[in-house]
Amino acid sequence: MKRTSFEHMPCPAAQAMELIGDGWNLLILREAFYGASRFDQFAAQLGIASNTLSNRLKSLVDNGLFERRLYSTRPARHEYLLTAKGRDLRPVILTLMQWGKRHGAPTGRRVQLIDTRNGAPVEIALVDARSGEPIGPQHQIRRDVPVVALPATA
Amino acid sequence: MKRTSFEHMPCPAAQAMELIGDGWNLLILREAFYGASRFDQFAAQLGIASNTLSNRLKSLVDNGLFERRLYSTRPARHEYLLTAKGRDLRPVILTLMQWGKRHGAPTGRRVQLIDTRNGAPVEIALVDARSGEPIGPQHQIRRDVPVVALPATA
Repeated sequence: MKRTSFEHMPCPAAQAMELIGDGWNLLILREAFYGASRFDQFAAQLGIASNTLSNRLKSLVDNGLFERRLYSTRPARHEYLLTAKGRDLRPVILTLMQWGKRHGAPTGRRVQLIDTRNGAPVEIALVDARSGEPIGPQHQIRRDVPVVALPATA
Repeated sequence: MKRTSFEHMPCPAAQAMELIGDGWNLLILREAFYGASRFDQFAAQLGIASNTLSNRLKSLVDNGLFERRLYSTRPARHEYLLTAKGRDLRPVILTLMQWGKRHGAPTGRRVQLIDTRNGAPVEIALVDARSGEPIGPQHQIRRDVPVVALPATA
């Protein structure tokens, strides 16, 4: 079944979902943030069929989220490294995890963002990057603003 | 086709995807953040078939993201309001949008988070909620920490 394409929707969230794909791909990306780069590492953590994993890694490479690199020539083996575009997804995965911790079913394991300098647990918050002010109801998304070419200045 | 369930995965990101569903549901939630609450408003913005939208709204109610409320009795009509759990997804949608703006295909419209007090565009950043320090490589997710009952203190 072909997934519905969000490609032509003029919304950045739809564009993002078009590139990420679906929840499985997000879990593959999550593994990369945990340090996985080789096929067997992804397969072992996700318990996903080889051909499915193979197709998904290919689509993530095609969409520019992973770079495929040869790390052994005999036999030829590739690893999958996050590109800058892929690494930029970290805030999405962190906010999703924090929400899942708060609202998902309780799991048997603790998953926690920590400060590696002292091991302290960290809660994340969204702020205005310029002022540092927390994002709140005073911040709203505006859309339907057509992008127009600016008139040439005299 | 039944979507693969992430229900039994001990990861909050997987739990989150289990509750959200997929990209379409995320776009329905996005419309709610824009102010949509009635069936026709979601339908008009998303161009989605009525029976599909109906099923999706039902699953989002079942998963506790929307509350279904009667707003007219003759004829009986319902609206769909974000619950606290649903509203908590805003940071996920905002980070996803920011990523999509940076890395998705350029769209014909500008979608921008703004400060409603002065109309200024806002870029979001993730910080440690306690210290205000930007989230960086010093912050890492630890998993596989089993949740154990603390021993009774003497």
